[in-house]
Amino acid sequence: MNLIGEHRLSLGVCYYPEHWQEDEWEKDLQRMLENGIRTVRIAEFAWNRIEPEEGVFDYSFFDRFLDVAEKAGMQVIFCTPTATPPAWLTKKYPEVLNATMEGVVYQHGFRRHYNYNSPKYQELSRRIVGRIAAHYASRPCIVGWQIDNEFNCEVAEFYSDCDVAAFREFLKKKYGTLDALNKAWGTVFWNQTYTAWDEVDVPRATPTGRVNPHRKLDFYRFISDSACRFAKIQSDILRRYVKKGDFITTNGIFGNLDSHRMTEESLDFMMYDSYPNFSYCHGLYHKEDPTKDRNWSKHLSEVRSISPLFGIMEQQSGANGSMEMMAPVPRPGQMTLWTMQSIAHGADFVSYFRWRTATMGTEMYWHGILDYSGRDNRRLAEVKEISEKLDCMKGVAGSRYEAKVAVLRDYDNSWNGQADVWQRKLDETSIWGLFQACQYTHTPYDYVYIDHCGKKELDPYQVVFYPHGAILTKERAEILRHYVEQGGTLVLGCRTAFKDIHGICVTDPLPGLLRELAGVDIPEYTVVAPDTGVVKAKWGDTELDTMLFNDQLTAVDGAEVAAEYTDGYYRGAGALVCNHAGEGSVYYYGSVFTADVAQIFLEKLGAAEPYAKMIEAPEEVEVAVRGCLFVLNYSGEEKVITLHQKLRNVYTGKEETGAQTLSGYETRVYES
Amino acid sequence: MNLIGEHRLSLGVCYYPEHWQEDEWEKDLQRMLENGIRTVRIAEFAWNRIEPEEGVFDYSFFDRFLDVAEKAGMQVIFCTPTATPPAWLTKKYPEVLNATMEGVVYQHGFRRHYNYNSPKYQELSRRIVGRIAAHYASRPCIVGWQIDNEFNCEVAEFYSDCDVAAFREFLKKKYGTLDALNKAWGTVFWNQTYTAWDEVDVPRATPTGRVNPHRKLDFYRFISDSACRFAKIQSDILRRYVKKGDFITTNGIFGNLDSHRMTEESLDFMMYDSYPNFSYCHGLYHKEDPTKDRNWSKHLSEVRSISPLFGIMEQQSGANGSMEMMAPVPRPGQMTLWTMQSIAHGADFVSYFRWRTATMGTEMYWHGILDYSGRDNRRLAEVKEISEKLDCMKGVAGSRYEAKVAVLRDYDNSWNGQADVWQRKLDETSIWGLFQACQYTHTPYDYVYIDHCGKKELDPYQVVFYPHGAILTKERAEILRHYVEQGGTLVLGCRTAFKDIHGICVTDPLPGLLRELAGVDIPEYTVVAPDTGVVKAKWGDTELDTMLFNDQLTAVDGAEVAAEYTDGYYRGAGALVCNHAGEGSVYYYGSVFTADVAQIFLEKLGAAEPYAKMIEAPEEVEVAVRGCLFVLNYSGEEKVITLHQKLRNVYTGKEETGAQTLSGYETRVYES
Amino acid sequence: MNLIGEHRLSLGVCYYPEHWQEDEWEKDLQRMLENGIRTVRIAEFAWNRIEPEEGVFDYSFFDRFLDVAEKAGMQVIFCTPTATPPAWLTKKYPEVLNATMEGVVYQHGFRRHYNYNSPKYQELSRRIVGRIAAHYASRPCIVGWQIDNEFNCEVAEFYSDCDVAAFREFLKKKYGTLDALNKAWGTVFWNQTYTAWDEVDVPRATPTGRVNPHRKLDFYRFISDSACRFAKIQSDILRRYVKKGDFITTNGIFGNLDSHRMTEESLDFMMYDSYPNFSYCHGLYHKEDPTKDRNWSKHLSEVRSISPLFGIMEQQSGANGSMEMMAPVPRPGQMTLWTMQSIAHGADFVSYFRWRTATMGTEMYWHGILDYSGRDNRRLAEVKEISEKLDCMKGVAGSRYEAKVAVLRDYDNSWNGQADVWQRKLDETSIWGLFQACQYTHTPYDYVYIDHCGKKELDPYQVVFYPHGAILTKERAEILRHYVEQGGTLVLGCRTAFKDIHGICVTDPLPGLLRELAGVDIPEYTVVAPDTGVVKAKWGDTELDTMLFNDQLTAVDGAEVAAEYTDGYYRGAGALVCNHAGEGSVYYYGSVFTADVAQIFLEKLGAAEPYAKMIEAPEEVEVAVRGCLFVLNYSGEEKVITLHQKLRNVYTGKEETGAQTLSGYETRVYES
Repeated sequence: MNLIGEHRLSLGVCYYPEHWQEDEWEKDLQRMLENGIRTVRIAEFAWNRIEPEEGVFDYSFFDRFLDVAEKAGMQVIFCTPTATPPAWLTKKYPEVLNATMEGVVYQHGFRRHYNYNSPKYQELSRRIVGRIAAHYASRPCIVGWQIDNEFNCEVAEFYSDCDVAAFREFLKKKYGTLDALNKAWGTVFWNQTYTAWDEVDVPRATPTGRVNPHRKLDFYRFISDSACRFAKIQSDILRRYVKKGDFITTNGIFGNLDSHRMTEESLDFMMYDSYPNFSYCHGLYHKEDPTKDRNWSKHLSEVRSISPLFGIMEQQSGANGSMEMMAPVPRPGQMTLWTMQSIAHGADFVSYFRWRTATMGTEMYWHGILDYSGRDNRRLAEVKEISEKLDCMKGVAGSRYEAKVAVLRDYDNSWNGQADVWQRKLDETSIWGLFQACQYTHTPYDYVYIDHCGKKELDPYQVVFYPHGAILTKERAEILRHYVEQGGTLVLGCRTAFKDIHGICVTDPLPGLLRELAGVDIPEYTVVAPDTGVVKAKWGDTELDTMLFNDQLTAVDGAEVAAEYTDGYYRGAGALVCNHAGEGSVYYYGSVFTADVAQIFLEKLGAAEPYAKMIEAPEEVEVAVRGCLFVLNYSGEEKVITLHQKLRNVYTGKEETGAQTLSGYETRVYES
Repeated sequence: MNLIGEHRLSLGVCYYPEHWQEDEWEKDLQRMLENGIRTVRIAEFAWNRIEPEEGVFDYSFFDRFLDVAEKAGMQVIFCTPTATPPAWLTKKYPEVLNATMEGVVYQHGFRRHYNYNSPKYQELSRRIVGRIAAHYASRPCIVGWQIDNEFNCEVAEFYSDCDVAAFREFLKKKYGTLDALNKAWGTVFWNQTYTAWDEVDVPRATPTGRVNPHRKLDFYRFISDSACRFAKIQSDILRRYVKKGDFITTNGIFGNLDSHRMTEESLDFMMYDSYPNFSYCHGLYHKEDPTKDRNWSKHLSEVRSISPLFGIMEQQSGANGSMEMMAPVPRPGQMTLWTMQSIAHGADFVSYFRWRTATMGTEMYWHGILDYSGRDNRRLAEVKEISEKLDCMKGVAGSRYEAKVAVLRDYDNSWNGQADVWQRKLDETSIWGLFQACQYTHTPYDYVYIDHCGKKELDPYQVVFYPHGAILTKERAEILRHYVEQGGTLVLGCRTAFKDIHGICVTDPLPGLLRELAGVDIPEYTVVAPDTGVVKAKWGDTELDTMLFNDQLTAVDGAEVAAEYTDGYYRGAGALVCNHAGEGSVYYYGSVFTADVAQIFLEKLGAAEPYAKMIEAPEEVEVAVRGCLFVLNYSGEEKVITLHQKLRNVYTGKEETGAQTLSGYETRVYES
Repeated sequence: MNLIGEHRLSLGVCYYPEHWQEDEWEKDLQRMLENGIRTVRIAEFAWNRIEPEEGVFDYSFFDRFLDVAEKAGMQVIFCTPTATPPAWLTKKYPEVLNATMEGVVYQHGFRRHYNYNSPKYQELSRRIVGRIAAHYASRPCIVGWQIDNEFNCEVAEFYSDCDVAAFREFLKKKYGTLDALNKAWGTVFWNQTYTAWDEVDVPRATPTGRVNPHRKLDFYRFISDSACRFAKIQSDILRRYVKKGDFITTNGIFGNLDSHRMTEESLDFMMYDSYPNFSYCHGLYHKEDPTKDRNWSKHLSEVRSISPLFGIMEQQSGANGSMEMMAPVPRPGQMTLWTMQSIAHGADFVSYFRWRTATMGTEMYWHGILDYSGRDNRRLAEVKEISEKLDCMKGVAGSRYEAKVAVLRDYDNSWNGQADVWQRKLDETSIWGLFQACQYTHTPYDYVYIDHCGKKELDPYQVVFYPHGAILTKERAEILRHYVEQGGTLVLGCRTAFKDIHGICVTDPLPGLLRELAGVDIPEYTVVAPDTGVVKAKWGDTELDTMLFNDQLTAVDGAEVAAEYTDGYYRGAGALVCNHAGEGSVYYYGSVFTADVAQIFLEKLGAAEPYAKMIEAPEEVEVAVRGCLFVLNYSGEEKVITLHQKLRNVYTGKEETGAQTLSGYETRVYES
């Protein structure tokens, strides 16, 4: 496939020919190529350039651009323009617009204001995508296609009349009868029973704003289904036209969207949009949190769970900033660091956002490589250096990220957590704690989506964490049993398996479907009160700080209590139970995985520091192996690593061993 | 009357037969009875079970349940189901729905989404209530009826078209003419004069969202009136059918509702829903506040002001938690503590919420006695112990809580405070300060609603506080004068009596109608600036920290300045004036009653520690006398009390004297 | 002109004859006159008193009042009543109402709920203003007219249907063609191109709520234009009727309104509403900020930029407080202090708000001189003392405030900052820092609006700051060039001149139009990350703490780098460049003017403490010269000043020299 899995790492850039004078195009493309950029993405917000009025198509603008690209030898990713419907369209067909829960219809003036379910929007989208594909797909410079842009970004809930109608269809198809729906949603509670399909609505304003949580869960599933169907409409059309070797993708991972399904159904692979300095925005900045941009390694692990090899469609190259957001420009070295972060985690292609900063519109503070003036600068020079480094990195493209630890996730529990603060707080704490512990102990891990995996996919992992799989099905329980029996070590957290697929609590003793496998019974549990804060437990000589939630465990069927609470009224109750099944073991831990607790598990289970024989590194430095050994210093300060064997630095071609001083933000890549 | 005033304390539980398999009912009721539970409440959210479609009635479901109850010997409280209209109803008659101030109509999916004033909803409610009463009222197991469920819970403002029409009728009836309304609302201010009735609306969106405060006050009165009228519709129907001895009640105390009036008009007594661990939710948790669950003693004093003897319809028995709220499970002993708290303050009947935790719907984290599995657990065992304790407590049921201190309240000032931050801050501070001081000095007190009391009702009290009665009428002034002249001690706080019943400020010298009684003149007053914080005053040798607001007092007509400000530009002005009238005294204090200040008043006026000769207890322990002496340790730690005389412990039957160590959350009840 | 520039300072008061009994009028006016008040403002919320129903006019009420005023010898400012349309009007013509962005229409019940663009409201306003003017304008007691009341107070955005239509007309007139509009708004970004005028709307709900920033900028301009046109409608009518010498004014400065234009087009001068204790409200109170009420000197400098001589229509005389706001009453001396603050900054007339506190309505806690009872009090006595002081202050009325420093502002950049956090944060920091530094160094300064000034208006100033003029035009660049070449010292801050008048970024090297004048090139810039906080720079021996934003400067065309950054990755880059042009100098500073930095500039440029030879004062004391020397102690504590020469105290007539102790809040005025 072009760009991904090609056995060559390469760079690209996002370019907006419509924002600049045509006579600048050729010079721009030449400068890109001179600086190591071989691919441009175009046209994702350009519906008007091709269909300036309804039914009138004019291909000349991008024909001229593609002529220039072909002349220059530039590769092109062409996009469908459905993320931003023209003003004439939304004015004439307001039913295509999305709305708020209260019924306020979003109007023209931003982007992503349309809904996926409007028959009219689907019709007009089909037509523009078909016309574009028919006209441009044979152009030799084109290497791939992007569908729409950032599905579900900014707004991931849909309340238009078209969505109401489609939600009813979705439910009819899913449940067949109202009786089945009433049962699945537990509508007997609070007299919510539906007696006619037209009583069923998307979630709406209520006193307190809350609605039945099972209905909400199905609403999120419906939104995901809507986006997937809309993407597939486009992908099905594109498939009829794209040249052999050209790929179909889309970019970004956003809420209420099963990106695994969308990728399976419609894409060749996923592309991600990586902006590590978002860590300064949207309330994400906390003085005491050292991970900041490094947190994007977590996000990239999510991408890898969808597409083991992927691309970065938008890699940060300047300050991010909408009109309401301020973030610093990447410091010298950070563009390299973030590019290597993306590659270390599975990217074969990295495209920067964007060539030159827009001088107008909502994103004029969203800086590209070049500033408004377009003149040469420090960041363009760094792009060139990066491209030279990539040319030295043989054996990375097409290879897989190495991990012996997996963390299980699934959409049901994620979406359930959106309407459920109990689930959400546990999830957030453990996802974050496991990430931190793995990073600080240089323990690479994968996310695996249990709702998108087969029985064998866990086999390669030494240790698998499934922190708080509240919703569990028989199929998923079977995958876990298989993994353990084959010799795996499964670690479960509190609140596991107490709900069915509709989010309804099971009446079997907890942990429900996993009771036997885990050898655990849970006669009592409690939220940990904020004035209690921490409840201590003891695992051999090691003290565990449990918090937020405590399942109080007893061991059954031959399992053993490995740790007991040592505090409070349930002092002596089990905090951790270990069971053996087949060749493997299961640990059921009655609380959350903070970074400290997670690190104890990694160490006790022998999973921490898998590359300790090769390299010793301080906490600030990430270590990853993908074809080569990547060493990434996220700190602005000098950091010393120690190589315990001779390794060839692929940037310089020289062998290194012993203590090595990395300057602030420095990266090293070694042949491993 | 059944359950209340029966000379027997008893336990109940909320049960939802529609949530469980019918074949479990009998076993459930048997287990309840075995554990001391003699009454169940049912059917408050079950409209659909009786009227599954419009006009089609089917009584068989609850007939079967009542058969089982009667066979088991279980008593039943039956509810009217109007809190949750069926989906078919709101779909067909959307005019029954409530709306936001901005006009967004609440939709099906939560509860309490209806409005009280829709003629159609009144008609359908009349019919379902009449049918239910006609069918079930004669059943022998039924002991009482609950109307609707938690009036005004979650949303206590109403903006539907039906409410607009009813508001106009309410005002026509109240004022007769627009001239009278214009005068009462002071509409000459900002040219708000109404010239036709259809110009008058419920409060609506305005720039800043503020509206005329007198209009707002009448709007709150209208909402209360609407709820009271709606309850009376149901009560009038029920009265026609209920068996002799069966009671009519409703549950909970919520905003914008004169529960005294509703009880007088429609109920036999009030029931309360007591969830002390709400102290961890809704932003109520503050690390440094030690009262937490003990704060519910304040709420129970409010209930007692309505019904001196009352029931608890929902007593917390598990973790409270909606999908957006997390709280811990009651710790061992806390269910007993909270039950005794309810009983000490006047409850004869305590019904736990709920038997078994719902496995579905919005409240599936709102835990009952039993968890999802329904198996025996620690909390059920504690219920049984409680029932055994209650059996020992002779002489409590039917007896009255003892208090020599009263705190006056009234709805006019409470509702006025909702739209008035000056009033609200003073009220909150003093209500809270008086509660804390009384608790810490073991000084029981009653709330008395002056708008619902006669001349004699204050006679029993040694000291009466009326903290900030801004709105005062001649009738209420007369009650106060009578109380003082008969020998009482009345304590007033700043901002007393400066408004008439419409909330319009009086032009007489302040404190208006109480000037003569209090012997006070107030030539100046001020908000205390936040950078000033505290202004000192001196009362004899005692220093008072005044704050928030300072009336600057002079004594008139023979009264005396008892304390002077010693700080700031009004150093030397009166902070406290004492006057004598008839046999009694009036203290006008120019500021708010913080806990420290309130304690000084209690001590100076000889009202603190009325049981000091009998018992000495630390601050963490509440002391109350109702038939017996209740000693309640809210702390999780051991606390030592000292009995200064021999007292019989009713749990054990043994006599105790001297130092007694109570374990964490322990309660003791002594014959007194 | 009456009251302003009359060579006599005078006092007034706001009076509401409609709020009180007619038989109190005469006594009230007599008491005012006895206490030094010579003018009353009336009728601004009294539409109903003159037109109680549509088309029915009755002038008798104010005729009677004016008779009383004339008899008493009281001067009157008469107001047009358009700020509060009658209920009959908004009920019959709902199109006159304003609405929220989401389309919720504001209803009767507050004030300022109308929109400026409704043809019907304009028609009815024209009629009532015409009738009032025709009937009352010849009354001898009238000295001036106020149009409406506080334009754009409370709500300064307009979304009614009438506004949508008017916005389209505004744009058609401004741009002529959609092509021009599309270009000015950069609609090619995100496919926002308009293809028909009816696609163009006021900003509306979008995902995230954001819209095109250039559209937003024009929307703010449109709102200002709407208000100016509405004021001019009234002013044009009034001009036809007002007696010779009577003035036309309006009161207050609020958002989205070019008060300079409104004054130029429609008024004789501006009046301001000065409530220094707002510093305790609206979240403005910060314990550590010492400026509080002194901050109003900043606001008064804004007023002076519009009208060098002005009036105060509402000067605080009691506690400010709506129902949601609490502030203390002015302490003894503060009314004098704030009156002198107003006069020192350019007021010839000071009218207190209000005579007696309203007993009803939304502002019943907004206290006047007198409390509800109307009896004599401390504040009235202070008014009398003030009037006696004013009588001694010869040579102040009609004279100008002296300043050698100016700070440039303009509406384009202010409004741009509303939708742009980058601009807003810089502006707020520098405006605040410059104010503080000037106050603490006793350096009077003027605001000059560069969009309302000619070439010569900067000539009198020794130093001119233009902190962050992002939007710059050729005309404004020319004014700056002229100022410098004539010998001025111009100081620019970061982010200067990178946008055109539409807010579109320039593609020339920065700082765009000022590159040559400033001798600066800006190859790089960055937001300063919050974890960096401060970046040090060195200006000679002085250390500058730069923050928030850093332009990284190089000097060009003979300019010199005066300060370099000494921190971080751009250590060594220019932080300050100095250039010479003609007789003057330009300093381009790459960051913001915090108080410390601003003080360094004032000192290095020789502008600080211009009256040091005459007076030495501590930081808490403001020094201003307007006809006389004003010395204002904002602290509640005693402060010592030192007079370096003999000066006559105009209050006492005595000469003073050397150390003088001012008591808390004391003011002194010396002949200078």
